[in-house]
Amino acid sequence: MGNNYYATINNTVERLNSQEFDGKLTHKGRDGEPYPSINDLYDFINLCRSVIFPGFYGSSMVNNQTFNYHIGVRVEKLFNILTEQLYAGLCFECKDEERKLELKRQKSLEIASKFVEKLPEIKLILRTDVEAIYNGDPAAKNFGEIILAYPGLKAIVNYRIAHCLLELGASDIIPRMITEMAHSETGIDIHPGATIGSYFAIDHGTGIVIGETCIIGNHVKLYQGVTLGAKSFPTDENNNPIKGIARHPILEDNVIVYAGATILGRITIGEGVVIGGNEWVTTARVRS
Amino acid sequence: MGNNYYATINNTVERLNSQEFDGKLTHKGRDGEPYPSINDLYDFINLCRSVIFPGFYGSSMVNNQTFNYHIGVRVEKLFNILTEQLYAGLCFECKDEERKLELKRQKSLEIASKFVEKLPEIKLILRTDVEAIYNGDPAAKNFGEIILAYPGLKAIVNYRIAHCLLELGASDIIPRMITEMAHSETGIDIHPGATIGSYFAIDHGTGIVIGETCIIGNHVKLYQGVTLGAKSFPTDENNNPIKGIARHPILEDNVIVYAGATILGRITIGEGVVIGGNEWVTTARVRS
Amino acid sequence: MGNNYYATINNTVERLNSQEFDGKLTHKGRDGEPYPSINDLYDFINLCRSVIFPGFYGSSMVNNQTFNYHIGVRVEKLFNILTEQLYAGLCFECKDEERKLELKRQKSLEIASKFVEKLPEIKLILRTDVEAIYNGDPAAKNFGEIILAYPGLKAIVNYRIAHCLLELGASDIIPRMITEMAHSETGIDIHPGATIGSYFAIDHGTGIVIGETCIIGNHVKLYQGVTLGAKSFPTDENNNPIKGIARHPILEDNVIVYAGATILGRITIGEGVVIGGNEWVTTARVRS
Amino acid sequence: MGNNYYATINNTVERLNSQEFDGKLTHKGRDGEPYPSINDLYDFINLCRSVIFPGFYGSSMVNNQTFNYHIGVRVEKLFNILTEQLYAGLCFECKDEERKLELKRQKSLEIASKFVEKLPEIKLILRTDVEAIYNGDPAAKNFGEIILAYPGLKAIVNYRIAHCLLELGASDIIPRMITEMAHSETGIDIHPGATIGSYFAIDHGTGIVIGETCIIGNHVKLYQGVTLGAKSFPTDENNNPIKGIARHPILEDNVIVYAGATILGRITIGEGVVIGGNEWVTTARVRS
Amino acid sequence: MGNNYYATINNTVERLNSQEFDGKLTHKGRDGEPYPSINDLYDFINLCRSVIFPGFYGSSMVNNQTFNYHIGVRVEKLFNILTEQLYAGLCFECKDEERKLELKRQKSLEIASKFVEKLPEIKLILRTDVEAIYNGDPAAKNFGEIILAYPGLKAIVNYRIAHCLLELGASDIIPRMITEMAHSETGIDIHPGATIGSYFAIDHGTGIVIGETCIIGNHVKLYQGVTLGAKSFPTDENNNPIKGIARHPILEDNVIVYAGATILGRITIGEGVVIGGNEWVTTARVRS
Amino acid sequence: MGNNYYATINNTVERLNSQEFDGKLTHKGRDGEPYPSINDLYDFINLCRSVIFPGFYGSSMVNNQTFNYHIGVRVEKLFNILTEQLYAGLCFECKDEERKLELKRQKSLEIASKFVEKLPEIKLILRTDVEAIYNGDPAAKNFGEIILAYPGLKAIVNYRIAHCLLELGASDIIPRMITEMAHSETGIDIHPGATIGSYFAIDHGTGIVIGETCIIGNHVKLYQGVTLGAKSFPTDENNNPIKGIARHPILEDNVIVYAGATILGRITIGEGVVIGGNEWVTTARVRS
Repeated sequence: MGNNYYATINNTVERLNSQEFDGKLTHKGRDGEPYPSINDLYDFINLCRSVIFPGFYGSSMVNNQTFNYHIGVRVEKLFNILTEQLYAGLCFECKDEERKLELKRQKSLEIASKFVEKLPEIKLILRTDVEAIYNGDPAAKNFGEIILAYPGLKAIVNYRIAHCLLELGASDIIPRMITEMAHSETGIDIHPGATIGSYFAIDHGTGIVIGETCIIGNHVKLYQGVTLGAKSFPTDENNNPIKGIARHPILEDNVIVYAGATILGRITIGEGVVIGGNEWVTTARVRS
Repeated sequence: MGNNYYATINNTVERLNSQEFDGKLTHKGRDGEPYPSINDLYDFINLCRSVIFPGFYGSSMVNNQTFNYHIGVRVEKLFNILTEQLYAGLCFECKDEERKLELKRQKSLEIASKFVEKLPEIKLILRTDVEAIYNGDPAAKNFGEIILAYPGLKAIVNYRIAHCLLELGASDIIPRMITEMAHSETGIDIHPGATIGSYFAIDHGTGIVIGETCIIGNHVKLYQGVTLGAKSFPTDENNNPIKGIARHPILEDNVIVYAGATILGRITIGEGVVIGGNEWVTTARVRS
Repeated sequence: MGNNYYATINNTVERLNSQEFDGKLTHKGRDGEPYPSINDLYDFINLCRSVIFPGFYGSSMVNNQTFNYHIGVRVEKLFNILTEQLYAGLCFECKDEERKLELKRQKSLEIASKFVEKLPEIKLILRTDVEAIYNGDPAAKNFGEIILAYPGLKAIVNYRIAHCLLELGASDIIPRMITEMAHSETGIDIHPGATIGSYFAIDHGTGIVIGETCIIGNHVKLYQGVTLGAKSFPTDENNNPIKGIARHPILEDNVIVYAGATILGRITIGEGVVIGGNEWVTTARVRS
Repeated sequence: MGNNYYATINNTVERLNSQEFDGKLTHKGRDGEPYPSINDLYDFINLCRSVIFPGFYGSSMVNNQTFNYHIGVRVEKLFNILTEQLYAGLCFECKDEERKLELKRQKSLEIASKFVEKLPEIKLILRTDVEAIYNGDPAAKNFGEIILAYPGLKAIVNYRIAHCLLELGASDIIPRMITEMAHSETGIDIHPGATIGSYFAIDHGTGIVIGETCIIGNHVKLYQGVTLGAKSFPTDENNNPIKGIARHPILEDNVIVYAGATILGRITIGEGVVIGGNEWVTTARVRS
Repeated sequence: MGNNYYATINNTVERLNSQEFDGKLTHKGRDGEPYPSINDLYDFINLCRSVIFPGFYGSSMVNNQTFNYHIGVRVEKLFNILTEQLYAGLCFECKDEERKLELKRQKSLEIASKFVEKLPEIKLILRTDVEAIYNGDPAAKNFGEIILAYPGLKAIVNYRIAHCLLELGASDIIPRMITEMAHSETGIDIHPGATIGSYFAIDHGTGIVIGETCIIGNHVKLYQGVTLGAKSFPTDENNNPIKGIARHPILEDNVIVYAGATILGRITIGEGVVIGGNEWVTTARVRS
Repeated sequence: MGNNYYATINNTVERLNSQEFDGKLTHKGRDGEPYPSINDLYDFINLCRSVIFPGFYGSSMVNNQTFNYHIGVRVEKLFNILTEQLYAGLCFECKDEERKLELKRQKSLEIASKFVEKLPEIKLILRTDVEAIYNGDPAAKNFGEIILAYPGLKAIVNYRIAHCLLELGASDIIPRMITEMAHSETGIDIHPGATIGSYFAIDHGTGIVIGETCIIGNHVKLYQGVTLGAKSFPTDENNNPIKGIARHPILEDNVIVYAGATILGRITIGEGVVIGGNEWVTTARVRS
């Protein structure tokens, strides 16, 4: 390679270094601070799966006599990864001036510990989701098939973990990365802020969007391509969207939404209502 | 970390270990039995690709004089991985009392051997699929581009392999994991149970669903977002869905289905029919 | 395993080796030539991300005093990988008779060098995209969240890199593999040949298709499931599609397209037009 | 590369395949049989080290409350690897005609299980070795330094494990590979068949050779370059060495052998004798 | 595997957990504390080699225009690894009661920073060692061959780094692990505490031992199998060796020691003395 | 970390960059040139072992029917690696002005091809070495044990490969790195320039040195710690050693050298002579 190529490289490096955009495209962490890592969160999710569905994930460990060693090692490991990532999330969001690292680390430990405590509860509700998928799909031969091969369940697992973390006080970025991981893998985009009841079933799943302020009851079933979105959102005096306003639908118990339907805005779909395929719904519905 | 965090971990491990749900969320294999592995199946698929499309996948091996060494090593390798995974699939499904491991292993060897025999045939039909995509897409510059970069073809490759395995008697879980792998990678969800003719073309692909009992003729083309699904399904006396009933559409030769169309139920779309974009079809169609 | 299994393997290897299909399913490179590698392009994209969004990707490197070392090493590295892959792309396409390897290598170096020069410009326009997404999504808490967790941005990054390479004269296969990588990860399929202005926002994104000859203005926003496709395409005397004809929509500045809409053919959607959800549009629109 | 290079390769492959030497340079295993693996034995040794010296090897696991999970997982893992390697060893040695695979597998399980039972005992005696090294070396600051950085201890650890396996009935090849691993790492070559008492200290170690039929008492110390070898060995009528005859020295308690000394033949070095540096000893010694 | 094997495992785990030996075989770190890692130190040494002998180690980086980026990134990286390992070393040695983590971390940073400052000096003296080896070995064709393939140089590099760290106040364990790494790789055992002048040449090297309190002048050359050891060492009232006493030889400038020679005790080998092969020297020598 | 640490790093980088020593510690390759890689040579040696001792190295491949596929793939692979490394070696040595890259590449291909042709011959002579070790060691139970676990054989394998390469015209650095690899692993240092006959046996091996101009006959056996070295070497007018002069011993057929013996200078040890342990020999010997 001739020298002119290297001159180009040097010149570009200089220009990139001088492009600052008020630092908004550059993440200036402090030395020694961790930062959110998609790889670490991926390991965390796999560990969660392996303690919730033992034997299906994370290599065999199903002998009764050594079972608890494996669960123990994995729970400890996921606790450690989670603590680090929660800390990274807290550092990620904070402004330079207000950093109190010791407090943040303490807070990370507390959230991680509470999350570990919630694991049996998460397993309990995921059990209802597996059952709902099984009952709703004639192609499903057994629970194992759903646990190993159904994208809908994978998305729900990530959502339930992410939602739990959000409720426990994790910074937004961590739960978002966790649900986004499932989005990338399955095409199902559930915002961690959504509230979803038990026995939740997603069929096929690709192309599903569930917005941040959705509230979904028990025994709800969604087909592929369903959007539970916002219709519009108010802006403030500077024409910026006002963040955090309830703007997505409420689906009560036993609602079914068929493929391709779009439900927009803070409207309520009443108990037992069935929304047809490709329907475009912007007003409330009750069971007729 | 203080001791209380570890106390929480210990306590959670105990609670997780005592949550059994009749064992349905836990996979109790026998010692020494393999279990279905997404990583191994991924290697298997890559080996299949590299012997079907030599030179495009699996690193270069295109010199005429050493060509057969490479194909030989890879076919032997895919045979071994497949045998192990088929065995894992058979163990996965069987009940405790009826396990006859030696028979299962024998059956795995036989299916894997038959699959190897079918490879040239699979290559033959995939050749028609590549050609169909090439002829239908003005953006495709050559066969190589389709083989390397078209998600539609990737999904069809996995489907044809999975369908072949299912026909040869593999347990459901293995073909399901193979098509699910493509689903995750491409957003195209083809059930391995579907029957699909030659010259099958998928354009763009994201969001396509092809159900378990679909029958698709030759020279059929589907665009993104197409669903070939079930409308409803009969339930037995316990209100459980009856598994295995024909409930998805039949598409005869030369059918084209445009983006976003949904075709539901055991209906026949006749030879040469074109279904428009976003159409919702629940009754049979014939060419007018 | 009995000998008959190996006999089957040997027999299959022989049959596969004799299946040639005019070589169209086999990539016959010359010895020593590289070939397009999805893994290398993946590394290339990650290096691009890490120099465009420093600190968010590619491990921490945000100390002011060593910053330029890291940017320097990475730009050099991405330059080298890109040069090799461009060369692989040029070899991939060329016919046997016309290979002039030295010229191809020279051309690869020149394109790669020009690409490096364009990096600050790419960063500049991506900055407008991040801002557009931020302003359009009440759920986005800060720029960092968009950079780390929004699939829409990931797809745009890959598109802008791929489009730049195409304009600089790279063979089609390389840009295609780069956008296909994003397609697989996000479900957003943007052809590298499309032309897209600044402040481009994609919300959720799954299921978006943007065709090869699309022209998109500034401040355009697309929701999930939107297709900007071709309606039909003329064929030549042999009934083959004529490649390269303008056949996709033009979207002028400030257009918004809601979820599930399909816009087909070389039609113009005028400045400021809003296309409703699930609309099927095949004729031009102007703001009323 | 021209074709002639590939012709050479093909030709060589053919010649290598036809070189058989009565099969003595080729290991013809049966299908599905494992074979001795240096990598697996390396993992096995590392797992042994991590349960014998917890916290020094195998990443931290020193919290009292989760301690037993880690030890449990590792003991199970080393049990599994060892079983497989013992089985590989038994297959490695057996002649074609006498293979009774099920019996061999059963035997492997039994030896591995007995080895696991011996682990606390091995730890007990290694404790005496660490203490002996500590007391004999003014440069050793603490036990940890010896455990982490003394080649002498590493060689003794491998020897004690290998010797235990040999006594439990493992085929020769497995213990040999284990001590050879230490030989390569440390330059200390202890045959697994040697018998060595407690409080055994090796200083520096490089170049030490301890033969198969050595018997070494308690509180013995060897310096670098010491050989405990055979002087000569009787041959049978075909002039082949007769295998297995006692032909190496006996060192009684409290013997010290200084650097470079060579002791050859089945002679006894009496209790408390000190052999000077570079001495060449071929006759028995008693303390004067 | 039958249950009895698992019972054995459980039983052994329990016994191992109860074996405490006053904790001396168990390293009880505090949570979050790093511990000395042979792998990290290995990376550290490789980074040192790659900045001292650029182009020979650590992949090519020899273009003048990007040279400083690479050196910069590597020096920063080795600084970070070293800081962590120095901290691990300080934690490793300290007793539970006296841990003042913040001070230790501060001390680690200071030592690592001073080490970085010393790098050019280390390079300077290693330059003399390379030259000495080159001049002394007719088989050495060029400097590059010595840098890439001479075990003697590798051992000296590790020694010079380790010795520098020891002088800067690192805990013993870190320098020990660094020289032990070279010992394992080359069979040359140089204690980091030894003092060695410039133009130091080791030929072949295997089996060389240089004790903790050795003092070696300039232009000294040692052949394989040479020991510079202690003759005996005084013990305290408890019969324990007194640590830290000068007990190894002093070699003045221009001394040559031929293969297999052993020099023991605090004696001086005068300027220019040549010690013959296999000699056993325990009294001072001067040039005759 | 405070800024002063980074200032130190920056300052050191600058100083290192300005330390040039006439470039002798820096390897200035040309862009795109490979350089000698210990990792690649390691893979090369392992591939050689796996085609010479099939089934013992390189994973099982012992089924008669697929045997030739595996050998074929491996020979091709070792040919490619070797060609690259030979080219790296030629580039490594050449001066800037005289580089004719195309010629060098051509020469590399020719040497690699000739080496491949020699493989069966190398296997033939290694067969005699295995037999010699087996016959000379009562502890050796079978050929397999020697192939898998005897350091002596490993060193001889590397020597025979390196020597062959040297004879075929490879630059010195490549064979040196190959024998040095064995030196590091086994403590046996055989210069690739030495000439060694068939049925060569090394027992234990650690500490053996065989110099560049040694000539060793057939049926020779060496024990650990043996040195076949140079006594002194003439210097030129500048007091530099004259390179390449015959200066090491000649050992005729059937010589045995016991542990620790040192033989120095261009002297001949006659047919059948036995050199005793620790002997120091500087004059010729004949059988008495």
